[in-house]
Amino acid sequence: MTTPQAPALDPRGDVVELTRAICDVPSVSGDETALADLVEAALRTAPHLEVLRDGDTVVARTHLGRPTRVVVAGHLDTVPVADNLPTRLQDGELWGRGTVDMKGGVAVALALAVRLEAPTSDVTWVFYDHEEVAADLNGLGRLVREHPDWLACDFAVLGEPTNGGLEGGCKGTLRAEVRLHGVAAHSARAWSGVNAVHAAGEVLRRLEAYTARDVEVDGLVYRECLEAVLISGGTATNIVPDRCVVTVNYRFAPSIDVAQAEAHVREVFAGYDVVVTDAAPGARPGLDDPAARQFAEAVLAVTGGRPEAKQGWTDVARFSALGVPAVNFGPGDPLLAHTDDERCPVDQVVSSYEALRTWLTT
Amino acid sequence: MTTPQAPALDPRGDVVELTRAICDVPSVSGDETALADLVEAALRTAPHLEVLRDGDTVVARTHLGRPTRVVVAGHLDTVPVADNLPTRLQDGELWGRGTVDMKGGVAVALALAVRLEAPTSDVTWVFYDHEEVAADLNGLGRLVREHPDWLACDFAVLGEPTNGGLEGGCKGTLRAEVRLHGVAAHSARAWSGVNAVHAAGEVLRRLEAYTARDVEVDGLVYRECLEAVLISGGTATNIVPDRCVVTVNYRFAPSIDVAQAEAHVREVFAGYDVVVTDAAPGARPGLDDPAARQFAEAVLAVTGGRPEAKQGWTDVARFSALGVPAVNFGPGDPLLAHTDDERCPVDQVVSSYEALRTWLTT
Repeated sequence: MTTPQAPALDPRGDVVELTRAICDVPSVSGDETALADLVEAALRTAPHLEVLRDGDTVVARTHLGRPTRVVVAGHLDTVPVADNLPTRLQDGELWGRGTVDMKGGVAVALALAVRLEAPTSDVTWVFYDHEEVAADLNGLGRLVREHPDWLACDFAVLGEPTNGGLEGGCKGTLRAEVRLHGVAAHSARAWSGVNAVHAAGEVLRRLEAYTARDVEVDGLVYRECLEAVLISGGTATNIVPDRCVVTVNYRFAPSIDVAQAEAHVREVFAGYDVVVTDAAPGARPGLDDPAARQFAEAVLAVTGGRPEAKQGWTDVARFSALGVPAVNFGPGDPLLAHTDDERCPVDQVVSSYEALRTWLTT
Repeated sequence: MTTPQAPALDPRGDVVELTRAICDVPSVSGDETALADLVEAALRTAPHLEVLRDGDTVVARTHLGRPTRVVVAGHLDTVPVADNLPTRLQDGELWGRGTVDMKGGVAVALALAVRLEAPTSDVTWVFYDHEEVAADLNGLGRLVREHPDWLACDFAVLGEPTNGGLEGGCKGTLRAEVRLHGVAAHSARAWSGVNAVHAAGEVLRRLEAYTARDVEVDGLVYRECLEAVLISGGTATNIVPDRCVVTVNYRFAPSIDVAQAEAHVREVFAGYDVVVTDAAPGARPGLDDPAARQFAEAVLAVTGGRPEAKQGWTDVARFSALGVPAVNFGPGDPLLAHTDDERCPVDQVVSSYEALRTWLTT
């Protein structure tokens, strides 16, 4: 099978054009190979970098003998395209899937990786796959398990969208299925069955009545969420359903761990068949760490942003679990991630680039 | 392609053996040709019958100049075989796919069609295809559209299983989608979205609170049902769903028509986006009709059964729509239709045969 070949990326040209070129190579989770190949090829044009690859994760690192090493990481994949590619530029904003989450951050990293031959810290640049899907597929998680040495560092920056500000830590995430059971029957004789979909009404009622907490951790406020994200029940239009599954997603403050989060979900759905399908801990903001403080001062001086709590789960938690302080910093409004209207001011791409460049060269 | 040739049917032999032979020719909907060919061949052995065919529907009729004409109809197709063919006879019951729904009725009709040279009414015997699938494929419906003259009659009997009793009329059925709309958002920042699955909670609440009516029509009680049969919402486990669809099935008494049924569903789900996807009217039992009363007295005197309301939708509704009174009468327990344990007491096949013979000869 032949597929249309995307043109090579130009990491030494305009960073907005680079963002655009990266966005225009679709890379929905599981389908990152074409983009990973292009990123790898671009990195291999820089003789000062050692380039490594594992699946569709590409790593490039300097070996300058600096006293500190930082990781700058970003994921290559996106959620499904919503008829919003190729990108378009309008009134100073770049529209399209990935412009916010997080190909702006990828472009900034790729441009700096190739151009910065002598940063003040050694840098490991990480471009990874499968961030937008189940945690066990996550490319960064795979590196933690299989190549932990590739991630060794003193401080890490994830290029997730922060509007050019700095977002500390992240909430944890837990997914569970609330499984309703019934008894099938012909829908013309429904009284001889038990409707599992009707039984889901009480589950949705508890979700509607649920009041999520706001939790302050190290000076930043995390807003929790508990939502139904999927519901599915029934097999045919003439059968009383004997099964219905409500998949819920709990996003919890980094003040509690996965076990406490699970206990909370089980308490909310007490009396129901609850099966946890996926969970990842959050990360405390870590802004009390000197490296994090120095990074914050350097980049915020350029972008004018301020530190806030990261509401979404991000892979900073994986660094946090390794004992490495880590923050999110990147162009784009996180509220526009995954939306059909995903778009990023090009100014933010440029200022994020400048801020990281300043930090890595001063 | 050659297929093993089934032996010719013997409509003049034992009616239980005939039932068995008919069951042992698999005829899942869409694959009725082999059985239709055998039925046609058997009918053509009777010089008193005019035999007609349309697709896999076979019609045979007398032309005796009687003042009344009755239709006796049965469908040749079955739901998929569940490893329950060939049939087996055990403790007076014939086991296997089709023994209940409805090859017992087909065998009774085929035997009488060939043997009764001078029934007291003219008779049109109808053996049709595609009853167990989407209504628009139904062979009887095709005759209504394309050969309505073949169905002209004063009274009709459908050989659907009634345990040898008599089931009058049938409920109507209406399917509708209740569509919930929300606003998508990342599930870590759920406050910026509107959850369409949570919104389905109120729809399910109304279904739970709904008390279905029992409606007496012409002395028979129809138990209505309003059930969710399918529910589907959400696109990914990290997105607040912007869409959820609850498919409901309303089975309504034949005292109301489709428009009234739709109005009722819209009233139950007032304030919601309701789209009707499928509807078919019910049929009044018609037991106040003299022909129906005479039929009931004649057959129930033989079988000892009694008239009851047909709860499921059946093709009697097609005759009802033509202004022809029609009833269900046939061997087998309707609760065993479509089950893996489908089986019919052979006594019921024999008594159904005797009852119809008595009615058509007295």
